[in-house]
Amino acid sequence: MTQGVKLTELKQILLEKGDLFHGLKKDDDGFVEFGELYFSKVNFNKVKGWKRHREMTLNLIVPYGDVEFVFVNEDGTFTSHRIGTKNYKRLTVPPGIWFSFAGKNNPFSIIASVIDQNHDPSEVDHKELEYFNYSWINHV
Amino acid sequence: MTQGVKLTELKQILLEKGDLFHGLKKDDDGFVEFGELYFSKVNFNKVKGWKRHREMTLNLIVPYGDVEFVFVNEDGTFTSHRIGTKNYKRLTVPPGIWFSFAGKNNPFSIIASVIDQNHDPSEVDHKELEYFNYSWINHV
Repeated sequence: MTQGVKLTELKQILLEKGDLFHGLKKDDDGFVEFGELYFSKVNFNKVKGWKRHREMTLNLIVPYGDVEFVFVNEDGTFTSHRIGTKNYKRLTVPPGIWFSFAGKNNPFSIIASVIDQNHDPSEVDHKELEYFNYSWINHV
Repeated sequence: MTQGVKLTELKQILLEKGDLFHGLKKDDDGFVEFGELYFSKVNFNKVKGWKRHREMTLNLIVPYGDVEFVFVNEDGTFTSHRIGTKNYKRLTVPPGIWFSFAGKNNPFSIIASVIDQNHDPSEVDHKELEYFNYSWINHV
């Protein structure tokens, strides 16, 4: 597991009129504070990243679709977690971790991100996909 | 407008690899406190409700699909707001308001709900769809 990244099982309650999916509770392990909730779509076979938040903790949930997240470990290896409606889990990403993600659902997937501060573009670092030697290179 | 219900425009940032949709920030009008985030799907032409939260404020966002929300006003009339990816707004619902909602997207829509407490089934009242004389009766 990448340093500090947490993967937490979430409940899906199946209902005839439409299912109920858990997301994040204030008492959950991994919750820090509420700063903002936003939604990132990722189109099929598109890759977003790499990015690294220097200060923020992110809680990531995929209530629609299927997304592969890839994290860079301290030793330069990679850890990948694929989450979505069929493997319904929450990813908690502490500050300082490089990651990227790819949409695996056609036509798109939706990531709900809860961050513990207001969005601040100055605390995010970005690198081109080629910067880390991950097989995204075949996707580009 | 139903007593205390707020409708707030939200930004959709269109991006080639997948759009970014705003949701809720801690400094937003309508935000009270973070208790829980969950996702309610509502299947096409299904109606969920009526329900009334006695203590909770809800912030409702539809990042996928199209949902018609109907609120009961103090004078017994109804106010309807249809929100979703094509009319992207947040609904803030204070405690004490009866409401229900219908899925208008095939096969389903997703409502992201941010509530200011942990979910507590004892603070929710429920009524059958027929209880209020709204045209849901034709949907049932």
